Amino acid sequence: MTKLDFAPKPKLDLVFERIVDVPPELVWKAWTEPEHLKKWFCPRPWQTVDAEIDLRPGGIFRTVMRSPEGEEYPSVGCYLEVVANRKLVWTDALGPNFRPSGAPNHCTESYFTAILLLEPHEGGTKYTAIALHPDEEGRKRHEERGFQDGWGKALEQLVELAKTM
Amino acid sequence: MTKLDFAPKPKLDLVFERIVDVPPELVWKAWTEPEHLKKWFCPRPWQTVDAEIDLRPGGIFRTVMRSPEGEEYPSVGCYLEVVANRKLVWTDALGPNFRPSGAPNHCTESYFTAILLLEPHEGGTKYTAIALHPDEEGRKRHEERGFQDGWGKALEQLVELAKTM
Repeated sequence: MTKLDFAPKPKLDLVFERIVDVPPELVWKAWTEPEHLKKWFCPRPWQTVDAEIDLRPGGIFRTVMRSPEGEEYPSVGCYLEVVANRKLVWTDALGPNFRPSGAPNHCTESYFTAILLLEPHEGGTKYTAIALHPDEEGRKRHEERGFQDGWGKALEQLVELAKTM
Repeated sequence: MTKLDFAPKPKLDLVFERIVDVPPELVWKAWTEPEHLKKWFCPRPWQTVDAEIDLRPGGIFRTVMRSPEGEEYPSVGCYLEVVANRKLVWTDALGPNFRPSGAPNHCTESYFTAILLLEPHEGGTKYTAIALHPDEEGRKRHEERGFQDGWGKALEQLVELAKTM
């Protein structure tokens, strides 16, 4: 299943959509290879200083972000669905091997599941990211902490990188 | 992958193992069809009065248990891995479509992920259930609330049922 097979819930979910002029294969590569991911994943001047990707359901997705002040923010999640070049689903509610996580993300203070959908679109990609939250408070906090702006800036960095790949 | 591809952690996980004299196909059927599940899933005199099973990664696994006093305990989880007759993985840390859950299970007060492994064994089944917890407290509470005894009694009921199927 490479499309979304359910309707997002406006009160619980956040949806980010863009058309970009790089093909799904390059977007996928940028998302799934640590050496690429580290170059675009955090809106600058934040940096992604480490990344670990085990690309299979149950595999780890770990990143470490560093603030401009030098503070580090590790995040550990788990892939749930992997369809090459089309769909990537992961959550921070679980860690590797699907083990439930100890504590919610420092940023959203709530677990979330992310669904990334890539569709070929006139030589480029229709890029859709959906964040699912357990409750309205979770969605609201994630929104207030800059979901749209953060995903937007990161995607611009991804596209810039993809054009050099 | 139908075997476990990682080592359980004794401080965080609980493991239940039995050999039973019914084949994996019948055990699978008893686990994955609501009308069968309802007949064995709760150690009597508790009852399973409702069950919903959408057998795919991201699909719902919902049950309602009723105490002898008539109190009902709903539980909602999500399947993570489904390998017919061999392996079933689900968690209550996520609900349908992989959405993070709102609150931990009433019984363990901690999320857990369950891995059920079925291996053909001399005409019967080697039956292994592993519960993964986020921390030692979660494992301990689940153990104290009768993990071994509960899974044991339920399995006896399952086997009894399977022999009539």
